[in-house]
Amino acid sequence: MSNPITPGAADTQPAQISVAVSARHVHLTQATVEQLFGAGHELKIRTALLQPDQYAADETVTLIGPAGRLPNVRVVGPTRDEDQVELSRTDQLALGIDAPFRASGDLAGTPGIVIAGPAGSVTLGHGVIGVLRHIHMSPAVADVLGLENHDQVDVALNHEGRRLTFSDVIVRVSPTYRLELHLDTDEGNAAGLRSSEAALLLGRVTRTNASGRASEC
Amino acid sequence: MSNPITPGAADTQPAQISVAVSARHVHLTQATVEQLFGAGHELKIRTALLQPDQYAADETVTLIGPAGRLPNVRVVGPTRDEDQVELSRTDQLALGIDAPFRASGDLAGTPGIVIAGPAGSVTLGHGVIGVLRHIHMSPAVADVLGLENHDQVDVALNHEGRRLTFSDVIVRVSPTYRLELHLDTDEGNAAGLRSSEAALLLGRVTRTNASGRASEC
Repeated sequence: MSNPITPGAADTQPAQISVAVSARHVHLTQATVEQLFGAGHELKIRTALLQPDQYAADETVTLIGPAGRLPNVRVVGPTRDEDQVELSRTDQLALGIDAPFRASGDLAGTPGIVIAGPAGSVTLGHGVIGVLRHIHMSPAVADVLGLENHDQVDVALNHEGRRLTFSDVIVRVSPTYRLELHLDTDEGNAAGLRSSEAALLLGRVTRTNASGRASEC
Repeated sequence: MSNPITPGAADTQPAQISVAVSARHVHLTQATVEQLFGAGHELKIRTALLQPDQYAADETVTLIGPAGRLPNVRVVGPTRDEDQVELSRTDQLALGIDAPFRASGDLAGTPGIVIAGPAGSVTLGHGVIGVLRHIHMSPAVADVLGLENHDQVDVALNHEGRRLTFSDVIVRVSPTYRLELHLDTDEGNAAGLRSSEAALLLGRVTRTNASGRASEC
């Protein structure tokens, strides 16, 4: 088989995919960008991310919750239709915010937060989530792996003899997606991953059912 | 079978055991206690822990590393023969210390740290570890579960639909031990556990081999 992705469903061989550990970050609307950084301000690209058109911006903000604040939180661009704040459970405890784990974009009924920038601050009525771990992939890769959008799979990591299996990892299929597992910092730290490491094995594939959740990157 | 522990090895039924999420803490020698809190000082019991004779003390210390400091770190008593500082990976990153994951008491070649108290500070040449996840149990419970000291097992948690399996969980058998899984805060947060929750299932039992590591509580 010439494809670098070795199928997990049809074969006994698991597929190796790269891991991105997502630290806390915010997605902002253009209106919020201007309230925080000044009228007419546009986000500047600092580092391109693997998913197409996504980038870590030069801009950072301070997050303020009932129990504390977190400075230097990265803005991820481009701007979106809704403000969204993605926090690990550790971050939530530091801020005093209890947010549900959701797919990106699924913000109904989530808690709010205060975001502060150099030109002003914004109080969000909702938009804070922990992001459910997920794997981005293209339709071509999904086909080879025998997977469909919204499938849930098991992903096994084996780092320094501390093996860990994440179940209920959501498969996200879109023509623009590159194959990549997204974990939050709690999950990355529990697995013992360092930021410079990026390999893992996709283990047992166990389709459960479609979640039907709205989701974007 | 009248035993409340349902065997996992002989049966298909997994055993349910309680979870303790251990936040960062220190074990101290009596000499270090006196350097930090004053001559003749004795640790005071704040809260008894499930493992016999172990307690969270009234006393807290500040940990100081190259990149930062962590205040209000709990001392766990009683005093021991060696100072030992137990940190999650998140804590290590905050302090700028890169410590290995070890069984408790296995401190050779580990990094040092500065510990500060109200009466003085102590610089440890070594003693900082991440603690490998482990399960305490008595010989009677181990016998029912078909396990031996140093076995490694898989433990599955299912919290709010985010299933997680920790492998390579070390079994620690001693007549004084009560059945309890010990995770660090990164592991607890990755599983979505809250401090007040304590139930999980002991899943597939896969004995690998004896580690031969020195270990205490």
